[in-house]
Amino acid sequence: MKHYNKLSEHYKKIANFEHLASVAGWDQAVMMPAGGNESRAKAMAELSVHIHQLSTSEHLGELFADAQSENISAIESASLREMKASWQKATVLPARLVEAQSLAGSKCGHAWRTQRGENDWQGFSKNFAEVVLLSQEEASIRADAANKTPYDAMLDLYEPGTTSEQLDSIFGNLKTWLPDLTQKVQLRQSGQQFIKPTENYSTKQQNALGLDIMKLLEFDFNHGRLDISAHPFCGGTSQDVRITTRYDETDFIQSMMGIVHETGHARYEQGLPKSLKGLPVGEARSMGIHESQSLFFEMQLGRSKEFIDQLVPLVLKHFPDNNPAVFEADNLQKIYTRVNPGLIRVDADEVTYPAHIMLRYEIERDLMNGNINYTDIPELWDLKMQQYLGISTAGNYKNGCMQDIHWTDGAFGYFPSYTLGAMYAAQFMTAMKKQVDVNTCLSEQNLKPIFNWLNKNIWSKASLLTTDQLVKQATGETLNPALYGKHLQQRYLS
Amino acid sequence: MKHYNKLSEHYKKIANFEHLASVAGWDQAVMMPAGGNESRAKAMAELSVHIHQLSTSEHLGELFADAQSENISAIESASLREMKASWQKATVLPARLVEAQSLAGSKCGHAWRTQRGENDWQGFSKNFAEVVLLSQEEASIRADAANKTPYDAMLDLYEPGTTSEQLDSIFGNLKTWLPDLTQKVQLRQSGQQFIKPTENYSTKQQNALGLDIMKLLEFDFNHGRLDISAHPFCGGTSQDVRITTRYDETDFIQSMMGIVHETGHARYEQGLPKSLKGLPVGEARSMGIHESQSLFFEMQLGRSKEFIDQLVPLVLKHFPDNNPAVFEADNLQKIYTRVNPGLIRVDADEVTYPAHIMLRYEIERDLMNGNINYTDIPELWDLKMQQYLGISTAGNYKNGCMQDIHWTDGAFGYFPSYTLGAMYAAQFMTAMKKQVDVNTCLSEQNLKPIFNWLNKNIWSKASLLTTDQLVKQATGETLNPALYGKHLQQRYLS
Ligand SMILES: [Zn+2]
Ligand SMILES: [Zn+2]
Repeated sequence: MKHYNKLSEHYKKIANFEHLASVAGWDQAVMMPAGGNESRAKAMAELSVHIHQLSTSEHLGELFADAQSENISAIESASLREMKASWQKATVLPARLVEAQSLAGSKCGHAWRTQRGENDWQGFSKNFAEVVLLSQEEASIRADAANKTPYDAMLDLYEPGTTSEQLDSIFGNLKTWLPDLTQKVQLRQSGQQFIKPTENYSTKQQNALGLDIMKLLEFDFNHGRLDISAHPFCGGTSQDVRITTRYDETDFIQSMMGIVHETGHARYEQGLPKSLKGLPVGEARSMGIHESQSLFFEMQLGRSKEFIDQLVPLVLKHFPDNNPAVFEADNLQKIYTRVNPGLIRVDADEVTYPAHIMLRYEIERDLMNGNINYTDIPELWDLKMQQYLGISTAGNYKNGCMQDIHWTDGAFGYFPSYTLGAMYAAQFMTAMKKQVDVNTCLSEQNLKPIFNWLNKNIWSKASLLTTDQLVKQATGETLNPALYGKHLQQRYLS
Repeated sequence: MKHYNKLSEHYKKIANFEHLASVAGWDQAVMMPAGGNESRAKAMAELSVHIHQLSTSEHLGELFADAQSENISAIESASLREMKASWQKATVLPARLVEAQSLAGSKCGHAWRTQRGENDWQGFSKNFAEVVLLSQEEASIRADAANKTPYDAMLDLYEPGTTSEQLDSIFGNLKTWLPDLTQKVQLRQSGQQFIKPTENYSTKQQNALGLDIMKLLEFDFNHGRLDISAHPFCGGTSQDVRITTRYDETDFIQSMMGIVHETGHARYEQGLPKSLKGLPVGEARSMGIHESQSLFFEMQLGRSKEFIDQLVPLVLKHFPDNNPAVFEADNLQKIYTRVNPGLIRVDADEVTYPAHIMLRYEIERDLMNGNINYTDIPELWDLKMQQYLGISTAGNYKNGCMQDIHWTDGAFGYFPSYTLGAMYAAQFMTAMKKQVDVNTCLSEQNLKPIFNWLNKNIWSKASLLTTDQLVKQATGETLNPALYGKHLQQRYLS
């Protein structure tokens, strides 16, 4: 057997255990009663140690060295690159640290579910201190190995190839025009009239509507499900993609577009090539590219007039007894494009969302680089919220620095993916429109050409190309943040 | 560290992986979309190989030898006995066979879900042939190692200590009086009038009723859930017990008592001592003892007049718009004690149930011992159904030999547990009544003394004692099948 094939077999074995980690993690968030957490956390920690052992097996180094000189195809060569990157990222961490992180993350995330509601920063920070300490250790180990700053070494886990130098430039640029644009949009929208939903929209009806929207977006129900969780996410495996939402019975607006968002993630997973299943090269390119797909669905398509026109008959069908004036296309579009600075990232509109990310980016960068302490977070949060969005969060941990689950699990370096994703999404739409008449597709309810473009340029490519190569092949250039500004300008000020 | 402690650590590690197998298995049966099965089956097979590797680690033999001479407590000694038994059972099987069985079982079980509905014995038997072959190989390997017959070696997996000699005697005895008793009961019930449920009982209402009954039976919802699956079962882990049922909207009778049954299994799991968690000695004693708890709940308690009296107000509460005459205690009791030979084991009444087991026992015994071929099963099924219950299943695979999931997974040797369980349940009730006024407990809705007796005598004992020791400590004697006959006589003919 070729050394390359031996490596493939090994990574397919790892994928089997990652499959189990996905199932157990989904179940923990969606199904598990609270009392099951202790034994679940232990089992998941044991599994993460095992995966780490497999990912760092002694014989891998030799196999990689030998495979390098083999006569392999272009696809195998890309596959080898991704296996090696995965190996290098795993092999620098000691097993002890991996296990400690899994346990600390489970503990912190689990307690957070109740502590957040109780605004209990004191209680939370007892667990969080440990998570931060372990992540700083991880960042420092990775930094030494990759000759990067600690934060850049973490960032590389989610956005291979992206640096904080780039992000400083991107967010530095955003700062120069976003606050001004936000104010202009608010001024323009200040006289706008629209009808807010104020009636009851039952969970059952919202769920049925969500399933219909997923059908419209060609979600494959033979390979996935929709469920409920406190924090919506897209999990599972590419053969069985599990998206979740949460329902507010007084307002269908959030969950409806939330489902569009998660369906974007899901279609990327469902579109990954079967022939590369189980190999690192067969996985999604990066978190930013993943988010570009969900935001393409939610923002580029979802909040366009033409898409909302398609939603109206579905909404009317599922809420036959509610006030239909709320469901008029123009009214829905006003709601979905309303710009209103607020406390909560996941509730933020398209225009103010990057401010939430900028804030988190600056804090996690400084935290990982050791320039601030985790105890500084609440105050910094308050200061930056005031600076970027004009809102104070003093004493409001619940809707301030305790609102997100990411950091409870040690996922420092993840947040920039959201804004990178929004930018990639705008760039993909700009490129797509040169080849596909997107608005006509939508108004004729023929979404196939849109999905075909995404499938051809993004989904089917998995991790065969680097992010820069992928984006350049699809759009003719690497990341161009100006297209995002142009999109906002066009949608909100033209 | 003592060798005993090293062994404990090792078995706790195995328990962590078994936890993951439970979660993945539950999800497969309850949540997973069909398209997810291929990758799930692979992941579960990989996991079963890993568990098998851990269960057969080379260093275990030495550790067992060394631990034997250590100064250990009585509990540790029992724990050592169970670890060793588990090791011996695992170590005789080659990894190749374990993996092949997991794959073949997943494949056969998954296809069975649709093939059964289509009465497709031909399609089914293509997969089943492989399962039987592998199980016969397993039985033969185990038989050689334990110096038993192949079937007895399989039986020992589910009922340690029980032999087919005992079962031949038990079922031989049953045959002498059960058909006669069945006929007498049928004669006696032939003029009985009762009102069958014929209205609609929504899934939602049945589910709410089920949850209320679980509360009455003191199911711990912080450590468990109720869900829906095609084939009801009790799964999960003792910290997170997952019971399932299925709802027929035209008839609440089945699912209501099905939930009582599974709650019996669940309370056993939830009652296992926390101090022994993760160790083989901390697990349920045997499948027969497990079934004794579910059948204690379902048959001994559940179909008694006094328990049904407690159900009536709950049923009335949840079905306020249905015909209340159906819900009268006397009517419900007539339904729940109606004896009526039928095709389906899981739908069978208390009196004819053992006939279904007898039939399966004889077939699986002869199949494992190589005295028949799997292709003989449909004909044998038909013959024995006619002989024991006077019903033909010729050509009816769906409601004949394809009705159960057990054999699809290679679980040959499991079926006798159902009848052993029924017998143990009768014996436990007989013993309990000497100490606890069960009927008064029920009529005063004070079930604690009943649960306390079970907890003290069964649940808290886990696998600290052998089955014979456990039953003798609890009831003063080892298995006494006559008490079961006495119970049937009393309930149905006195
Ligand atoms: Zn997303
Ligand atoms: Zn049972």
